[in-house]
Amino acid sequence: MATTRPRRLARQVSIVGAGLSQFGAYADKSSRDLFVEAFLDMQGTIDTGISASDIEAGYLGNYSADLFEHQGHTAPIMADWLGMTPTPITRVENACASSGSALREGVMAIASGMYDVVLVGGVEKMTSLPTEGVTDVLASAADGLYEVPAGLTFPGIFGAIAKAHMDRYETNLDHLLKVGIKNHENGKLNPKAQFQVTIRDMMDRRKARSEQRGEPVPDWSDELDFLNDARANPWIAWPLRLYDCAPITDGASCVLLVASEIAEQFTDKPVHVAGIGQATGRPLHDADELTSLSAAKVASAQAYEMAGIGPEQIALAEVHDCFTIAEIVASEDLGFFAPGEGPHAVDQGRTARTGDRPINTSGGLKAKGHPVGASGVAQVIEVYKQLRGEAGDRQLDNPNLEFGLTHNVGGTGGTCVVNVLQRG
Amino acid sequence: MATTRPRRLARQVSIVGAGLSQFGAYADKSSRDLFVEAFLDMQGTIDTGISASDIEAGYLGNYSADLFEHQGHTAPIMADWLGMTPTPITRVENACASSGSALREGVMAIASGMYDVVLVGGVEKMTSLPTEGVTDVLASAADGLYEVPAGLTFPGIFGAIAKAHMDRYETNLDHLLKVGIKNHENGKLNPKAQFQVTIRDMMDRRKARSEQRGEPVPDWSDELDFLNDARANPWIAWPLRLYDCAPITDGASCVLLVASEIAEQFTDKPVHVAGIGQATGRPLHDADELTSLSAAKVASAQAYEMAGIGPEQIALAEVHDCFTIAEIVASEDLGFFAPGEGPHAVDQGRTARTGDRPINTSGGLKAKGHPVGASGVAQVIEVYKQLRGEAGDRQLDNPNLEFGLTHNVGGTGGTCVVNVLQRG
Repeated sequence: MATTRPRRLARQVSIVGAGLSQFGAYADKSSRDLFVEAFLDMQGTIDTGISASDIEAGYLGNYSADLFEHQGHTAPIMADWLGMTPTPITRVENACASSGSALREGVMAIASGMYDVVLVGGVEKMTSLPTEGVTDVLASAADGLYEVPAGLTFPGIFGAIAKAHMDRYETNLDHLLKVGIKNHENGKLNPKAQFQVTIRDMMDRRKARSEQRGEPVPDWSDELDFLNDARANPWIAWPLRLYDCAPITDGASCVLLVASEIAEQFTDKPVHVAGIGQATGRPLHDADELTSLSAAKVASAQAYEMAGIGPEQIALAEVHDCFTIAEIVASEDLGFFAPGEGPHAVDQGRTARTGDRPINTSGGLKAKGHPVGASGVAQVIEVYKQLRGEAGDRQLDNPNLEFGLTHNVGGTGGTCVVNVLQRG
Repeated sequence: MATTRPRRLARQVSIVGAGLSQFGAYADKSSRDLFVEAFLDMQGTIDTGISASDIEAGYLGNYSADLFEHQGHTAPIMADWLGMTPTPITRVENACASSGSALREGVMAIASGMYDVVLVGGVEKMTSLPTEGVTDVLASAADGLYEVPAGLTFPGIFGAIAKAHMDRYETNLDHLLKVGIKNHENGKLNPKAQFQVTIRDMMDRRKARSEQRGEPVPDWSDELDFLNDARANPWIAWPLRLYDCAPITDGASCVLLVASEIAEQFTDKPVHVAGIGQATGRPLHDADELTSLSAAKVASAQAYEMAGIGPEQIALAEVHDCFTIAEIVASEDLGFFAPGEGPHAVDQGRTARTGDRPINTSGGLKAKGHPVGASGVAQVIEVYKQLRGEAGDRQLDNPNLEFGLTHNVGGTGGTCVVNVLQRG
């Protein structure tokens, strides 16, 4: 039936503004505070200015203010706090891919002819719960009938994925740790990141602290040595250690989408949404294999097809590194590297900012932080800034940046959203 | 700016199939069971048949499986249970208007050119919690910063709305009770309804039980007499009694949307989506008045404008009677009756099945039941069936049925979604 026809939007859509709250742990900020902060940041990026009343519709990605803040129906509250009432805002939830899906709804809302100017954002306030509470809330994005009762939480699930990858390919523990080292090097250059610090910085601080206290100073020779020491980097769910896991983060993100034909009213450097893809995957307990997320393959194939390009034309990507292994798997699912080649690409520095396939220049979820409902749009913002040449100290040194990609995963691949963005 | 231009869809969208689970309290059914039940019911209504793999995208309205079942990320689970993977499904949450908003996303997804065949449904499994737990979960759809800490729950909020309406207009307690009497009369004729029983039936049963037990038989003369007796109908939040409140319900609903140009492939009696409107309203603590929901006025104006009609052309409406007063307020906000005239219209039987403006022929949320995330689409299904002449014993005796309306409210009007449907 019609399921295999090429997907086309009736109207092209562009991004013309982008804003992030500071990412971190903020006891004094609620979801609404964070979202307003992101919106104000976005307003500052739009050359011609934008007021809340100029916006015709909105989408809010949020995983679970229900469980984190005991607040449902968050979308109209955001409309109220931004002064946008009666503009419609709808909350979209697909776990950690919530704002990835929200972006897609915003794109289709414009393409449908209903709207020309749409706000899409995401928010999550996570530090309101203790760590074990957060782990429990996140686990509810897995299958509560088959997976959660078996004792699975996300570190355990991604630990199993890492183990499967190690069994099948040449992947080893150092490959995983090197993803984290790279992402922290990028995050250090991102003024919105939760951790603006490299692993080497952390190692040096630990040494200095020991020295200050008159304790024996560990003789870590380099970052890998440091990360392989359980005193510095304890096991969470073997083979994953603490620094293989994205942190718990409070944060918000938003972008302004407009019909491409009016983009120049807002900026002379729009970024076009060239391809969008979204797919579901069966729960992991029933998946065909653990070393790949089927939804990522389907969603990226859709996005590439719509954009009319292949993975080799993607100059940079923000991928969903909720755990270090997830970045490696993503780099293979997206077609950047052959199955099993992802870890070697990390080893060779190919995914570093200076490599031929930079991944997570923002610092990724690992260092930038992972306010789950906000992450999908935050990824889009990094690509938007890189394509516009506005990524500051982490700007890629590549005059030919044209296409960038974002890869946003919900759960263990129950949802995957892939976008291909193109410099205007 | 562009906010005031007329809203138009680039492509017309039609409904070609509809399914409901049984509405009620089911200890042995989860959300996924209920949704599959609705889907199977829908399959049976599509003349030419439909398989899950024919569907290109899906939207699931759900308020809070998070809090009711500790299950987030419900959309891909539904895809899995329907055998639809890898088809994308996205959860939409706008409190009790969740599936109203989901329908809107489905309509825009088709209009955008991306898809031709889209499933839109809603589900809520509420009876997993005790009544006070449900009240708490629902209260989290109000503003958790200003309203909930003041002690407000939804019966209290709608009690305040009823009191304001009584103060401002000639509304009295009997007007409210008559809404319930009417809706139960309709619900008795709906084989999917949670309460297929009239208030008179309930009165007679209570009398018979007393007689059986050898207790004094109450001398209630009619339904109003019965409903005004606190032994039969206790106060919940003055001036609202038990039978002014919609029940707690488990249930699911779904419809199949297709591009109008291919509707005849599925049915010779499509129903077209002629107008869609959605708006936000400020939280009630900050609203200008209590006797009207501003979002309902804005959303209905949008829907009428898009459909090119006025309220006088609406032959029937399903409105959001979460409490009896809400139906009266809706009938005024939608322009069916002037402000303050709603209660008199009830008195005069104008909103009965035999009246000139039938409202809630399905039994409404009051008698059909209110599985909150499913209600928006369930309303659409009633209008769909009436316009197709397939509403069974409750079919309206009006050969000129052309336009019907649905009015779906989230919270206290933080969200309102209004659809105008047209017989094809």
